[in-house]
Amino acid sequence: MEHTYRLLISCPDKVGIVAKVSQFISDHKGWLTEASYHSEADSGWFFMRNEIRADSLDLNLQQFTAAFESIAREYQMRWFITDSTAPKKIVILASHASHCLADILYRWHSGELHCEIAAVIANHDNLRSMVEWHDIPFHYIPVEKGNKQRHFDQVETLLSKYQAQTIVLARYMQILPSALCQQYQGQVINIHHSFLPSFVGANPYYQAYDRGVKLIGATCHYVTADLDQGPIIEQDVERVSHRHNKDDLVRLGRDVEKIVLARGLRYHLEDRVVIHGNKTVIFD
Amino acid sequence: MEHTYRLLISCPDKVGIVAKVSQFISDHKGWLTEASYHSEADSGWFFMRNEIRADSLDLNLQQFTAAFESIAREYQMRWFITDSTAPKKIVILASHASHCLADILYRWHSGELHCEIAAVIANHDNLRSMVEWHDIPFHYIPVEKGNKQRHFDQVETLLSKYQAQTIVLARYMQILPSALCQQYQGQVINIHHSFLPSFVGANPYYQAYDRGVKLIGATCHYVTADLDQGPIIEQDVERVSHRHNKDDLVRLGRDVEKIVLARGLRYHLEDRVVIHGNKTVIFD
Amino acid sequence: MEHTYRLLISCPDKVGIVAKVSQFISDHKGWLTEASYHSEADSGWFFMRNEIRADSLDLNLQQFTAAFESIAREYQMRWFITDSTAPKKIVILASHASHCLADILYRWHSGELHCEIAAVIANHDNLRSMVEWHDIPFHYIPVEKGNKQRHFDQVETLLSKYQAQTIVLARYMQILPSALCQQYQGQVINIHHSFLPSFVGANPYYQAYDRGVKLIGATCHYVTADLDQGPIIEQDVERVSHRHNKDDLVRLGRDVEKIVLARGLRYHLEDRVVIHGNKTVIFD
Amino acid sequence: MEHTYRLLISCPDKVGIVAKVSQFISDHKGWLTEASYHSEADSGWFFMRNEIRADSLDLNLQQFTAAFESIAREYQMRWFITDSTAPKKIVILASHASHCLADILYRWHSGELHCEIAAVIANHDNLRSMVEWHDIPFHYIPVEKGNKQRHFDQVETLLSKYQAQTIVLARYMQILPSALCQQYQGQVINIHHSFLPSFVGANPYYQAYDRGVKLIGATCHYVTADLDQGPIIEQDVERVSHRHNKDDLVRLGRDVEKIVLARGLRYHLEDRVVIHGNKTVIFD
Repeated sequence: MEHTYRLLISCPDKVGIVAKVSQFISDHKGWLTEASYHSEADSGWFFMRNEIRADSLDLNLQQFTAAFESIAREYQMRWFITDSTAPKKIVILASHASHCLADILYRWHSGELHCEIAAVIANHDNLRSMVEWHDIPFHYIPVEKGNKQRHFDQVETLLSKYQAQTIVLARYMQILPSALCQQYQGQVINIHHSFLPSFVGANPYYQAYDRGVKLIGATCHYVTADLDQGPIIEQDVERVSHRHNKDDLVRLGRDVEKIVLARGLRYHLEDRVVIHGNKTVIFD
Repeated sequence: MEHTYRLLISCPDKVGIVAKVSQFISDHKGWLTEASYHSEADSGWFFMRNEIRADSLDLNLQQFTAAFESIAREYQMRWFITDSTAPKKIVILASHASHCLADILYRWHSGELHCEIAAVIANHDNLRSMVEWHDIPFHYIPVEKGNKQRHFDQVETLLSKYQAQTIVLARYMQILPSALCQQYQGQVINIHHSFLPSFVGANPYYQAYDRGVKLIGATCHYVTADLDQGPIIEQDVERVSHRHNKDDLVRLGRDVEKIVLARGLRYHLEDRVVIHGNKTVIFD
Repeated sequence: MEHTYRLLISCPDKVGIVAKVSQFISDHKGWLTEASYHSEADSGWFFMRNEIRADSLDLNLQQFTAAFESIAREYQMRWFITDSTAPKKIVILASHASHCLADILYRWHSGELHCEIAAVIANHDNLRSMVEWHDIPFHYIPVEKGNKQRHFDQVETLLSKYQAQTIVLARYMQILPSALCQQYQGQVINIHHSFLPSFVGANPYYQAYDRGVKLIGATCHYVTADLDQGPIIEQDVERVSHRHNKDDLVRLGRDVEKIVLARGLRYHLEDRVVIHGNKTVIFD
Repeated sequence: MEHTYRLLISCPDKVGIVAKVSQFISDHKGWLTEASYHSEADSGWFFMRNEIRADSLDLNLQQFTAAFESIAREYQMRWFITDSTAPKKIVILASHASHCLADILYRWHSGELHCEIAAVIANHDNLRSMVEWHDIPFHYIPVEKGNKQRHFDQVETLLSKYQAQTIVLARYMQILPSALCQQYQGQVINIHHSFLPSFVGANPYYQAYDRGVKLIGATCHYVTADLDQGPIIEQDVERVSHRHNKDDLVRLGRDVEKIVLARGLRYHLEDRVVIHGNKTVIFD
């Protein structure tokens, strides 16, 4: 994996931003391996992602941050820079369904997803062996009827302990408390098993079956306090027909869920996503 | 085009239906060019489509109908049989947007869609020349503010006059009165410019833009008195990204709308659709 | 899983086949859960798949076979009947790439693929731990330069020992000897990492990159003595662009390979495939 | 339509190109509406497209060209700049199949494709009325057996007369002479009715049918002297099955051809394509 810095910027659009930023990078000998720009006419907002070869720069990350600050202030930028060789710490929340979890674990294990999976937390114990085979800590935290908060308190403690930077809800099936959504804003990624905004909430495949749709889908999105309303990262669909019963939809949907979550998570881990309001800019 | 009879059946499922029907066809020397069956476990309902070479049968359509009646009664069938060489009469309702209308006209003109386009009715006059070039009558029936019913009365009169068997709403943008929906139940085909049930009602592309979806779609469905709630015939989607503004969504959507309507209409014209409750069985 | 019998038939087309077969099934009280028919005008050939609830029939499999023989002879049928509760024994051949193997193992382990994975044979040892975690025997049979036949001899011995009914080449990367292809005709399933017939042979993603295609694909097919020329079961594609380098194509291709192989293998295991000449009829 | 200048650049990659170009634009008050960059590690080549609001610049097109020349020389750029309000003159070459031609005419007529269709030349006369309804000159230039050159000579004369900047082969079905390919290098766009490199040459749908592929496709590419080998602009596919005969493939293929050609042509007309060797960079 190449050692690069990823510089992400969003700011009000005006003449000269690209010139200013690229001149700064060029002045410090930065070699761009990727550069993506987006100007949104509706909102008058500008978005930018630069990926720079670390070994080409005459600044390290700390020096870059300090030196860039005056430009950022001048253009009222929201910005951050990350190091491609510093994997994000992620914690996965799961329930008893294995497909999304197994898929992420496989992609991580085979070197396709660059991250550190700090732990898996589940409200069922059935996936322990699969997780532990990967040498990843597994925490079984049941959800008690009438005392869900106890579960979430324990989850919160573990998230802190593992210093989670990104939380993946891999068919977790619990609604995160607002406070947790706030605390980890823009860092909690969910896979919803429908093509949102269709079929919000429970049993989307059954809803889809009853409506007689000809395509089913899945949606990877950031979690906010509003259920299934957060910024969408990725979606995809699969064709179905009258020949498919409810179980078939569930089965076919699993493959869409896996791939949509994997793509969405990858965008996030590679710092390709800028959240703006309730929407995302994806520099793929 | 081959001369065939198309026999469509739906009935409560039980042992022996296929045997009974296919024995009847075989007894009358019928050569099957297509045969499709569907058994729906949930509802306990059975669906069947047989396409039979007309020249192989020792019965004509009228004789077939009479002879088959006793089987139909025995199995409580809803059924009909059509002649592939008798094109359905269709009337197209349009507004000022041309893409769906032009697409249907082209497919008809080039011999791809087997139907008789009896007339086009529109509440704007801008598409007259395009329609009349095809030697199809064009009726401009404006919609007056405060007196929409006058428009629908004239439309109804024309539908009767032309003996319309199928009505296509090619981006007609008006909500048909319930009475008309009832009268032409299962014969009115609409193209909605979203992936239903997402974005019911007006301006679906703007709704899609504001929600930040990553795919836009279109839905071809039978019209019922409930807006955008009728049985879905066909759907498809197209990928979009943050780079696309509202106008881009509208433009990209046009291609999906055209193809989804064309597919749905084709299924209908070839008698490949069985409506069952609020869903469809499509024998493609 | 429902207990059914699957009756697959192909024969020269003529009037009355469906009637004959469905009458036979009906006479023996058979309840059809699925019935699919295909008549190919070009070749004058007829194809049929019936899935019958085992508990509805007044015959067991052996009795059915005996009783059906006279019809089969009369219509010159190639046919077979299988029991849905008797899983096929499969042996997987792999190399060092893990993605297809891991995907099949997962689907089997989670109950999605109904089969018995008798063993995995690989010419590298790196996947042993993953396979053995599933309690499946793993055989490391290296390929020696200059003496490949020794490898194939050992493979053949193991296939016999395990009584393999289906052999899956999960990115095996070796060309099976003609004799083995012959012996297991119609039972060896390969995943080729291109959209055949494009990019036959080695390094298809590199070929695709050099040609500048805008979609890459994968093909699941039966193996014959002609390299990458056997009957195609399933194909799919994924969009790529100039932004993707060779490694990206390999990575994106893995997901297509996995899903195409999984679908193709499922069709095969559920007896949904009829091979006819160098093509397949898939009763999905 | 917004009035913009489109600046397209390709050159050997090095540090500072973006800075240099964007500083130049910024110095002249240029407001970027789109900016896209691509760096190809394999070839060490850099590609860039900037779209600049014309009314923001303090230079007109001629002044820009003169002023930018020294930067272009310094970085050994191949480059050009175009005016979005100056539509390209295109000439369409057709045969007797109408679908691609009708689709382009419709998109042009409805204002979706920004170009000037100077003329249509066909080797059959059947499409005259459709073309002339659009007030576009139609030239019937038959191909005589044994004297094809006569046809091409007349075509060449007409291309010169109409000062064609882009030539669209809309299912033209003739192989252009090498000399013409050379003369209009990078300006002749063809739609091939297969997913290249599969099924080069004649009757690709029949080849596809015989091979039993599960997807058919279409390819839009620049024409070079090597048949069906030129740089690919766009491709897409459509699912088919054993239920589709050769005529079905042809019919389904028409829709893919239309949409692939329309997309490819749009990219070309909006100056979104950079040809590099035998590949394209598409700034969509």
